[in-house]
Amino acid sequence: MSEPSSNPLWGGRFGAGPAAVMAEINASIGTDKRLWQQDLAGSRAHATMLGAQGIIPIADVDAILGGLAQIEAEYAADGVPEDIALEDIHMTVETRLRALIGPGAGRLHTARSRNDQVATDFRLWVRSACTEVDAALLAFIEALLARAEQHADTILPGFTHLQIAQPVTLGHHLMAYVEMALRDRSRFADAAARMNECPLGSAALAGTGFPVDRDATAAALGFARPTANSLDSVSDRDFALDYLSAAAMAGLHLSRLAEELIIWASQPYGFITLPDAWSTGSSIMPQKRNPDAAELVRAKSGLLLGNFQRLAVIMKGLPLAYSKDMQDDKPPVFEAHDTLGLCLTAMTGMVATIGFNTARMRAAAAAGFSTATDLADWLVREAGVPFREAHDITGRAVRAAEAAGTDLDGLSDADLAAIDPRITPAVRNVLSVEASVASRTSFGGTAPANVRAAIAAARVRL
Amino acid sequence: MSEPSSNPLWGGRFGAGPAAVMAEINASIGTDKRLWQQDLAGSRAHATMLGAQGIIPIADVDAILGGLAQIEAEYAADGVPEDIALEDIHMTVETRLRALIGPGAGRLHTARSRNDQVATDFRLWVRSACTEVDAALLAFIEALLARAEQHADTILPGFTHLQIAQPVTLGHHLMAYVEMALRDRSRFADAAARMNECPLGSAALAGTGFPVDRDATAAALGFARPTANSLDSVSDRDFALDYLSAAAMAGLHLSRLAEELIIWASQPYGFITLPDAWSTGSSIMPQKRNPDAAELVRAKSGLLLGNFQRLAVIMKGLPLAYSKDMQDDKPPVFEAHDTLGLCLTAMTGMVATIGFNTARMRAAAAAGFSTATDLADWLVREAGVPFREAHDITGRAVRAAEAAGTDLDGLSDADLAAIDPRITPAVRNVLSVEASVASRTSFGGTAPANVRAAIAAARVRL
Amino acid sequence: MSEPSSNPLWGGRFGAGPAAVMAEINASIGTDKRLWQQDLAGSRAHATMLGAQGIIPIADVDAILGGLAQIEAEYAADGVPEDIALEDIHMTVETRLRALIGPGAGRLHTARSRNDQVATDFRLWVRSACTEVDAALLAFIEALLARAEQHADTILPGFTHLQIAQPVTLGHHLMAYVEMALRDRSRFADAAARMNECPLGSAALAGTGFPVDRDATAAALGFARPTANSLDSVSDRDFALDYLSAAAMAGLHLSRLAEELIIWASQPYGFITLPDAWSTGSSIMPQKRNPDAAELVRAKSGLLLGNFQRLAVIMKGLPLAYSKDMQDDKPPVFEAHDTLGLCLTAMTGMVATIGFNTARMRAAAAAGFSTATDLADWLVREAGVPFREAHDITGRAVRAAEAAGTDLDGLSDADLAAIDPRITPAVRNVLSVEASVASRTSFGGTAPANVRAAIAAARVRL
Amino acid sequence: MSEPSSNPLWGGRFGAGPAAVMAEINASIGTDKRLWQQDLAGSRAHATMLGAQGIIPIADVDAILGGLAQIEAEYAADGVPEDIALEDIHMTVETRLRALIGPGAGRLHTARSRNDQVATDFRLWVRSACTEVDAALLAFIEALLARAEQHADTILPGFTHLQIAQPVTLGHHLMAYVEMALRDRSRFADAAARMNECPLGSAALAGTGFPVDRDATAAALGFARPTANSLDSVSDRDFALDYLSAAAMAGLHLSRLAEELIIWASQPYGFITLPDAWSTGSSIMPQKRNPDAAELVRAKSGLLLGNFQRLAVIMKGLPLAYSKDMQDDKPPVFEAHDTLGLCLTAMTGMVATIGFNTARMRAAAAAGFSTATDLADWLVREAGVPFREAHDITGRAVRAAEAAGTDLDGLSDADLAAIDPRITPAVRNVLSVEASVASRTSFGGTAPANVRAAIAAARVRL
Repeated sequence: MSEPSSNPLWGGRFGAGPAAVMAEINASIGTDKRLWQQDLAGSRAHATMLGAQGIIPIADVDAILGGLAQIEAEYAADGVPEDIALEDIHMTVETRLRALIGPGAGRLHTARSRNDQVATDFRLWVRSACTEVDAALLAFIEALLARAEQHADTILPGFTHLQIAQPVTLGHHLMAYVEMALRDRSRFADAAARMNECPLGSAALAGTGFPVDRDATAAALGFARPTANSLDSVSDRDFALDYLSAAAMAGLHLSRLAEELIIWASQPYGFITLPDAWSTGSSIMPQKRNPDAAELVRAKSGLLLGNFQRLAVIMKGLPLAYSKDMQDDKPPVFEAHDTLGLCLTAMTGMVATIGFNTARMRAAAAAGFSTATDLADWLVREAGVPFREAHDITGRAVRAAEAAGTDLDGLSDADLAAIDPRITPAVRNVLSVEASVASRTSFGGTAPANVRAAIAAARVRL
Repeated sequence: MSEPSSNPLWGGRFGAGPAAVMAEINASIGTDKRLWQQDLAGSRAHATMLGAQGIIPIADVDAILGGLAQIEAEYAADGVPEDIALEDIHMTVETRLRALIGPGAGRLHTARSRNDQVATDFRLWVRSACTEVDAALLAFIEALLARAEQHADTILPGFTHLQIAQPVTLGHHLMAYVEMALRDRSRFADAAARMNECPLGSAALAGTGFPVDRDATAAALGFARPTANSLDSVSDRDFALDYLSAAAMAGLHLSRLAEELIIWASQPYGFITLPDAWSTGSSIMPQKRNPDAAELVRAKSGLLLGNFQRLAVIMKGLPLAYSKDMQDDKPPVFEAHDTLGLCLTAMTGMVATIGFNTARMRAAAAAGFSTATDLADWLVREAGVPFREAHDITGRAVRAAEAAGTDLDGLSDADLAAIDPRITPAVRNVLSVEASVASRTSFGGTAPANVRAAIAAARVRL
Repeated sequence: MSEPSSNPLWGGRFGAGPAAVMAEINASIGTDKRLWQQDLAGSRAHATMLGAQGIIPIADVDAILGGLAQIEAEYAADGVPEDIALEDIHMTVETRLRALIGPGAGRLHTARSRNDQVATDFRLWVRSACTEVDAALLAFIEALLARAEQHADTILPGFTHLQIAQPVTLGHHLMAYVEMALRDRSRFADAAARMNECPLGSAALAGTGFPVDRDATAAALGFARPTANSLDSVSDRDFALDYLSAAAMAGLHLSRLAEELIIWASQPYGFITLPDAWSTGSSIMPQKRNPDAAELVRAKSGLLLGNFQRLAVIMKGLPLAYSKDMQDDKPPVFEAHDTLGLCLTAMTGMVATIGFNTARMRAAAAAGFSTATDLADWLVREAGVPFREAHDITGRAVRAAEAAGTDLDGLSDADLAAIDPRITPAVRNVLSVEASVASRTSFGGTAPANVRAAIAAARVRL
Repeated sequence: MSEPSSNPLWGGRFGAGPAAVMAEINASIGTDKRLWQQDLAGSRAHATMLGAQGIIPIADVDAILGGLAQIEAEYAADGVPEDIALEDIHMTVETRLRALIGPGAGRLHTARSRNDQVATDFRLWVRSACTEVDAALLAFIEALLARAEQHADTILPGFTHLQIAQPVTLGHHLMAYVEMALRDRSRFADAAARMNECPLGSAALAGTGFPVDRDATAAALGFARPTANSLDSVSDRDFALDYLSAAAMAGLHLSRLAEELIIWASQPYGFITLPDAWSTGSSIMPQKRNPDAAELVRAKSGLLLGNFQRLAVIMKGLPLAYSKDMQDDKPPVFEAHDTLGLCLTAMTGMVATIGFNTARMRAAAAAGFSTATDLADWLVREAGVPFREAHDITGRAVRAAEAAGTDLDGLSDADLAAIDPRITPAVRNVLSVEASVASRTSFGGTAPANVRAAIAAARVRL
């Protein structure tokens, strides 16, 4: 049996002739139509400014604004038409405008070029994307805070090297992700602030001789100021890379949480039960809840990292000013944004609805001599033993307990005193997991009271 | 004026509830429907084998094969329906089969699972993709060979560090890319051979107790043999990564050629004129032919590298066996394949139709004392001077010529003899660019005769 | 003849037994000794705080501080000893301290662990690295400003698609890189601000029960505040990734400038002459100045991007809290920092000393109908023609000039009027490259006056 | 307290002047001295050929070979001297040769340049590196085979989505990694074969006019043939990228095994006990064996992926022929090779000595209704039920067992018959984990007999 061709169209492509292939590799309307609102906003600001500066007649400005309003209504209702021959969103809009208002449409392109136009459109889009991510991060943080508050006292093992280390509280663990998400917010905020300059008026590359008012267009579009150098304005895609690197970082944090959920859901752990909505089952094994959503979120960090890399490689070594390579800036950003939004939404949903099996968590936390450090600290604090010596004494105690097949609390007072006479029965106050977590009251520590304070503080920071 | 929202649907997504977001992140039918032919082929092979082994009744096999034939006709005519509720191509096909032939459809999934099914489908697809790339590389090579033959004698400067170094022939330069493309072919061939094992029959992860004949299904699908380990079979995506790394390498080669075309088309060089079909013009500057296609090909190397990275990051650290992360294997491969096909086709078209400005090339080649090495070699060959000493003498000659504002050939016999008495008038035979390239007759060298021999040899290798 | 072994030690490694291989893969002293100053600073702050809080006796604090001072003197004089058995800088210091002051050294590790210790050390180092890069960026900017000032009036062709587009000034072109470098500074500043929280006191992962004063240690080390969550504190390497992504971005900018210098130095361009100090010559071709330093700077962007990727991949999917994987955080950062410093220094040197061949630049700028846009703009401005119509008229003028084998200024008044009667002799004022650049006075435009204003403004921003 | 400077040398660097910085960025002797054996081998082959072809006098050849032999002895005894002024290994060797034998040394560089010389040296090195990795992979495979043989019958849970799916044998699981390692071997073998062409004789870029015998030098150095195009020969670094992509793939496989070992060593799993030699302990928690070596192996996949990316980015868009960027090809390859060797050696050691807690593995395998699929298959096989219907019946049985708080085998005959009358007591033969694995006898399946056959087959393939 012969193997089916994976793509019957490929052979045909060769026959299609250069025109078809060139159109396919060259046209961007399929992608950049997503900028239609930004393109219309930029044109409105530009036309208004041209009129105010007396560069084009007010009557033409009015006609242009009227035409743009109609185009906005059309696109909102019916979507953006994709005519490959018009290449991109800019020509698509201008061609429609000409059809609507006649040759006066030709005045709109005075003192601008597609180079500064697309730079403006895309900045507007990316700046708005930062705002959207911020809202999604905020929702994610709020979900974490709500669950942290419920579980400020819930004890689970804290791991290092995926080995049980010390007991911690679940609320504290969830709050670690709040810190990461807050840093993510600051990263998108920094990116949004850095990109908040308007390239419009830089024209093709050299600026223009028309008496444009770049402060006016910048203000109209909500930018803090116009960009300072016309060559840089049309050559720069830092703003897209800033978005992508922030998205890659957020993806790393989400992948870490996803990894933990997957491990916690695994039967030998059994720390969590995933809600039906965020897992897939099996009709044959009804107890099985595959953590598909978490796995997919973990996988998406590959896309987010890869897309930063992809645009960075494109920009590497490009001479000034605009090169067509830069047309490939939008697909990785659009894709990353959709993906990050999906991941944040899915993870917010999972965090909000996950079932925590607190009994299993506590049982695991009590295993593995997890409070040995507490014994050492007690010796330092109560008996003035230098820490390194306390550490050695504790090691002997753990070995004795292990030999006796018990945990530290299972050793008798006499056993403990035999190990070191400075260990008195008062030590028992520190050997339970509850005592351990309650004692960690240093700022940022895992004690339930601290967790509650941290939640309150985080709410203030939001 | 307020900034338009970049994506009005995003806010709505939060309101859509977990079911909608989970469906969006989980369903793959939008992507994997592209595997429909492979899925049908795999099912045909599996059903036939189940019948031959007596695992399911022949009557059911016949009904299944009939149903699959009908589905093939339906999809070929109308495309694959995308019902999110059916998740993927496997359930889409099976559901349709049940509608067509009833409960007997349920026998098709005996002794297999979606895990080995998708591994088989995707291998079939990627293997076929390797074949398609090979054909495209062949066409690209043939275009290079044809132009190399036309320009076996055409002289242009050979550069190192983008500085003029020695004259070379254009045919020779183009043949360098033939070597790269031949290596690319071998890379895809290696990948295709390595992946040419059939996972079908590995079932969910552990193999099956049914007396399946894996040799039979492997043979039916054109594989060399069945895979040797069921856990590996469903966990392995090396074949996709092998494809992607080969594609990334091919992309690097294409980006190098694209860079050269862009530089050669730049006015200070003016070595080539791009055909209308592969450039974009400007109604204002009719001489301008922006090398858009070359720039886009150069940019695509970013996508190809990024997509290898993307899947590699996904696979990093995944425990056995199947994890849902692996569902994200297909988008980067599909995208890379479409992109590489487009780039190869575009570059083939450009190579075939580009205009070489041979006069400008020759003039540039004669500049910069590009034959100084020939003088040094002549001293070694004709006068027995050790190379390093010949090198020093040549340096003195070049400095003398530079001081005199001429090139080497512009020095008089007396001038040359004054520099070193061993330089005789016979040296003039080696100082022209034509003499220089003609002399480079070592195997693999740039002499026109060698280029013609290399073209002939390459045609034998194809 | 047999091939030499590339690494005769490899075979031996197998024989070395697990201990040797484990030591080799596990020990980090060879790398992290570079943190010795930070480690001593952290210990000083911690010991002082422990004493102030009454956690350890003041006498011990004094002894510890004395010991640390002696260690500092030793390391400054003789370097840090590398004893693999002591694993890392923390144990190396503590072991020496014990040798110097006896068991009291064991009190230093009270209420801390290596997990928060290394997080603190490395943050201090990276924060300081940001400061160093800032200084190097400043020097780079100053070099650019100085040359921009010298060449505010120098005309060179502005390119898009590496095709001559419009004349620009060299000062303006150099100022584009000032903008990029200013963004780079803001990126490092953002990173430094975000990382400016002190993890010390987070202990192993859960915080501590000792009454530590984390505000005091944070202040002593110059941090704005202590970190808010102990689990996050020891698991987080965002600060290293923030450094690496900022470095990758800076590397992209440098690679763009390097690419331009390499193209400009190529003989067909001949726009610049590289100084001897920043190029390598050839004794055979004395005119040759290979732009090695620029090529190496361009290459280093690969390292900088790769190292961000490398650490990001390491962090992907790591569960909390500390995993040993994170030990591999330092090599990519150290390497990136050394590389970026070298690149910035080299590029600063090149910019400061490069020779600009202004005559060749101007000649190239005047080619290719580079002032065609000026004609179109003149028609809009002086004759009220809509831009798109002006664009068409200009196209006809260029075609006429091309047919006549001249440039636009070579057409007679009658020729121009024949193309469109609205073109009057007054147009000649705008057709020279000098007039063209002088006219681009929009904010951020290329006019010499604007360039001087931009330089002045940039000096204010520094 | 002021923050210590992270690098007191940086400031000084600025003061060092261009010469020092240029030397630092330009010289490669610190790295490429590692090629000394390859450089000597290449020179021996070249000199011998020059003599045989009568290009240089035999007496000079003899002197050169004698000098090279002495240099080899010197470097073997004392290492390669690092004199920055000599730039690289080629000039270092040639300078020493001249000191030893006088001006005749200058004849060695006849008909070659550093461009083909370094391409030859580095190919020799990378080809040898492939051989070394192959040996390390072989040792790794043998360790896996030995443990697989010991544990052909040992049962552990097979996971999908890290959820218990079906019981498998440990031998089978280990054999999955044998398959990956065998693919890795084939990848290095493909790379070694593809690079096995000799660039020597390509000279600077254009070939040479001397009557060199490239077949002779190729044969002398063990290459299959000379390279076919001189421009490609000096511009190509595919061989280094092929090595790096193969290394990245091997790193992915090792990271997957490392991840499993880390999870298996985690207390809730407790499937393995890491040997002391491959873990780090804690004096305070003697039971703790942090899987440091496994974590570091997992981390190194970041380096291996990053280094492929790094060199790929360097090569992207480089025009022909040699550019100095390519000097940065060696550090990522050297580093990757050392790292991969270390990882393979460490993992081989871990696999050989790890302790498998078979009782815990078996207990986990029996949990989670892991044999539900066996019940469904039994219904298909013994009662002729279509698979999908059998699947539904099994689902009802599992729900009944779950409701009764038992596993499938805990349901009475009557209970089972009530679910479906076709379930008879004979079903009990398939419900144990031992029966389950024993039944998976399809080729590549997990049955102990299959595992033993697979081990035998793998030994034949080695």
